[in-house]
Amino acid sequence: MRQGIRKVFVANRGEIAVRIVRAARELGMQTVLGCSAADVDSLAARMADEVVTVGPAAAARSYLDIGAVVAAAKGVSADAVHPGYGFLSENAEFAQAVVDAGLVFVGPSPRAITLMGDKAQARACAMKAGVPTVPGSDGVVENVAAALVAAEQVGYPVMLKAAAGGGGRGIRVATDAAELEAQYAIATREAQSAFGYGGLYLERFVALARHVDVQIIGDGERAIHLYERECSLQRRRQKLVEEAPSPSLDSDVRQRMCASAVALAESVGYRGVGTIEYLYEPKTSEFFFIEMNTRVQVEHPITEMITGIDIVRESLRLASGEPLKHIQSDVVLRGAAIECRINAEDAQKNFMPSPGKVSALRLPAGPGVRVDTHLYDGYSVPPFYDSLLAKVIVWDSCRSEAIERMKRALHELSFEGLKSTKALHLALLDDEGVRSGDYHTGYVEANLTRIVSGIPN
Amino acid sequence: MRQGIRKVFVANRGEIAVRIVRAARELGMQTVLGCSAADVDSLAARMADEVVTVGPAAAARSYLDIGAVVAAAKGVSADAVHPGYGFLSENAEFAQAVVDAGLVFVGPSPRAITLMGDKAQARACAMKAGVPTVPGSDGVVENVAAALVAAEQVGYPVMLKAAAGGGGRGIRVATDAAELEAQYAIATREAQSAFGYGGLYLERFVALARHVDVQIIGDGERAIHLYERECSLQRRRQKLVEEAPSPSLDSDVRQRMCASAVALAESVGYRGVGTIEYLYEPKTSEFFFIEMNTRVQVEHPITEMITGIDIVRESLRLASGEPLKHIQSDVVLRGAAIECRINAEDAQKNFMPSPGKVSALRLPAGPGVRVDTHLYDGYSVPPFYDSLLAKVIVWDSCRSEAIERMKRALHELSFEGLKSTKALHLALLDDEGVRSGDYHTGYVEANLTRIVSGIPN
Repeated sequence: MRQGIRKVFVANRGEIAVRIVRAARELGMQTVLGCSAADVDSLAARMADEVVTVGPAAAARSYLDIGAVVAAAKGVSADAVHPGYGFLSENAEFAQAVVDAGLVFVGPSPRAITLMGDKAQARACAMKAGVPTVPGSDGVVENVAAALVAAEQVGYPVMLKAAAGGGGRGIRVATDAAELEAQYAIATREAQSAFGYGGLYLERFVALARHVDVQIIGDGERAIHLYERECSLQRRRQKLVEEAPSPSLDSDVRQRMCASAVALAESVGYRGVGTIEYLYEPKTSEFFFIEMNTRVQVEHPITEMITGIDIVRESLRLASGEPLKHIQSDVVLRGAAIECRINAEDAQKNFMPSPGKVSALRLPAGPGVRVDTHLYDGYSVPPFYDSLLAKVIVWDSCRSEAIERMKRALHELSFEGLKSTKALHLALLDDEGVRSGDYHTGYVEANLTRIVSGIPN
Repeated sequence: MRQGIRKVFVANRGEIAVRIVRAARELGMQTVLGCSAADVDSLAARMADEVVTVGPAAAARSYLDIGAVVAAAKGVSADAVHPGYGFLSENAEFAQAVVDAGLVFVGPSPRAITLMGDKAQARACAMKAGVPTVPGSDGVVENVAAALVAAEQVGYPVMLKAAAGGGGRGIRVATDAAELEAQYAIATREAQSAFGYGGLYLERFVALARHVDVQIIGDGERAIHLYERECSLQRRRQKLVEEAPSPSLDSDVRQRMCASAVALAESVGYRGVGTIEYLYEPKTSEFFFIEMNTRVQVEHPITEMITGIDIVRESLRLASGEPLKHIQSDVVLRGAAIECRINAEDAQKNFMPSPGKVSALRLPAGPGVRVDTHLYDGYSVPPFYDSLLAKVIVWDSCRSEAIERMKRALHELSFEGLKSTKALHLALLDDEGVRSGDYHTGYVEANLTRIVSGIPN
């Protein structure tokens, strides 16, 4: 029994709610699941000590309703709220409301969430902490001459982004000065017509980049890292497979990347678990800070597997007021771990969601295999939320063995009642680029047609 | 795909058959389950690539029938036979029959099995390899005078054992010379009347002893150890809970015990996985060789958890003709692991077996939890074999956390249709002697009434 927290309110659903219940129980804490009306028969509801409905199925009126969640947590006399990931987990207003209600928010301070939630402020923090950021114009380039000067400073290739744009729209790449002059004219015209403002930012274009995250834990005074996760196997910015350690880093880059993450976390007095996201360019061995996630990540289990540290339990310990338990030299990277996110989607039909009732469920098990899931036999996957069915996670002594173990585990996974991406994952594990570790964030989309065509019907 | 073994015949049942199928699959080997007629609908049968019946339910006519098993393995064109544990796994005649049929026996040579299967020969091997054995008279003590001389040499307390006896019958303990004189007269008379022969052995009596096993792996040339398992929590010589590392050893004793195990394995050119069993006396920090198991043990997973080495996969690799993959310094002990053997027995009714059909099965999962089981929802536990239902195994960074994690895991385990020892295990995990690590091989039996009385009905 922890002095600080007696009863935790789990403000989430699905597998992460199950995960939090497990961690809390190991610490002797009581658990209350605060779920929507659609989730009262979920696995987390069956496992928690208490269940309370925070609102109807629509997330906006339940999982995203700050007032309703805080009122429910108060109503059951919880002393802490764990937000999980997604929903309100990175909402500073929610964290503040929890604190204002006299409860502990299991996560960083509202101030840290706000700071890291603002791209410009987060970038400024990173630069101040000596963490590399993508070289860029730091503001709008006024005209083509200014763009040429900025490009010389940051180095080619560069990209032009509409200052008023977002989500990848209006991006133009130039590999030399001549191309930049031509692209500048096109890009500013496009931005003007699309957004009513032709202003452009200029940034280094990181080619064939990899997405590598570093897990950190801080207690407000000091921080440690738990090494990195390679997250480049994505489709439409949704991660499909993650692995730890990254097959693309040498030990020098790993050391510098992890040290940068710790420096940034300590510079903002970070308390809780968090992730520093980097873009990594294998060709130049350069890495650049993108953003920080101020919460537990979906793929945290692979880090738990290679370090032996229970990240969710640590988040609850820190929230209880305990100092960081580990020093950096305690954290030893061992073996290799992989996670496959199995979604209720039909990969052969453009990833169409496939909710439904699960039957004849068989989950993988055995040495080095962990399945984090909210499925049970007879469970109806509701159509209201994300399509994650299960995270199949494996550990083995090296990467090639981990791949074979994952294939063994996926073959053991079976259920009826809905389509899933299991076969896609098996195809990915047999793909040459994936097996060699030589892939980048655009790899899956560039090869998706070929990979999907290899899936047996 | 391994050059050496293409198809493995699994000559066993239950959870160990499932375990072998998993290991073989990760190595790209095909699997054939050779089972009795009672097991054709078992989980292992569902998971193996092929299933063949070796005989009727009665083990003597199936799992113990050497001719039937070898013929079945030949019949399906397997190249190797994995015997698992129990049944024919330590039967040299079986190993020889497999070899004579032109198949690979996954285990040591028939010669090594014979040598270690004979107590006197095994003891002689241990002494030759410099491994401590229980000091004793090395033969019958002719009379009371000879007994007194021998007792001075081995040190008090001593015990007298009937040379013609066995299984603990006719054992008498003496703590000094006067008691020895008195006990000798009684013991020789008892032995004469019970066995028709009054001859007695004399041995050091190891008080409050612990049962500690060391896992070894050898390739015929060299051997390594994977540290020890503490197996003292037993009832009627059946292990209930095992843990690794042992809470009773300091690092010096651990080092000497493990080095002795390696010396013994190397001295007999041991090839395969095996276990050296010791009696350990905490008071004197002395340990004594008891015997060697020339096969995989039930509790091997806790060693896999603390070392990261897949023992069953290694046994298949070695059988394929590969040399030992690891050197001793590769083997790093990390954290603590516990195994609870959940049996289909009613602890409150004198451990009466409780076979039946399992329904509403929910198995524990999450970080650090592994369940090795052959149960599935709807499975009927047959009454013909042992009562092991599931091995619940946990790992955590230290022993006290592992205990809390095990309690969490056992609370998640639920099923209907039969009685189990789950509640007994929960009671053991709350017992002060177990929690402190201060127990011995007689501890459970000495405290069983108290422990069982604490189980809620």
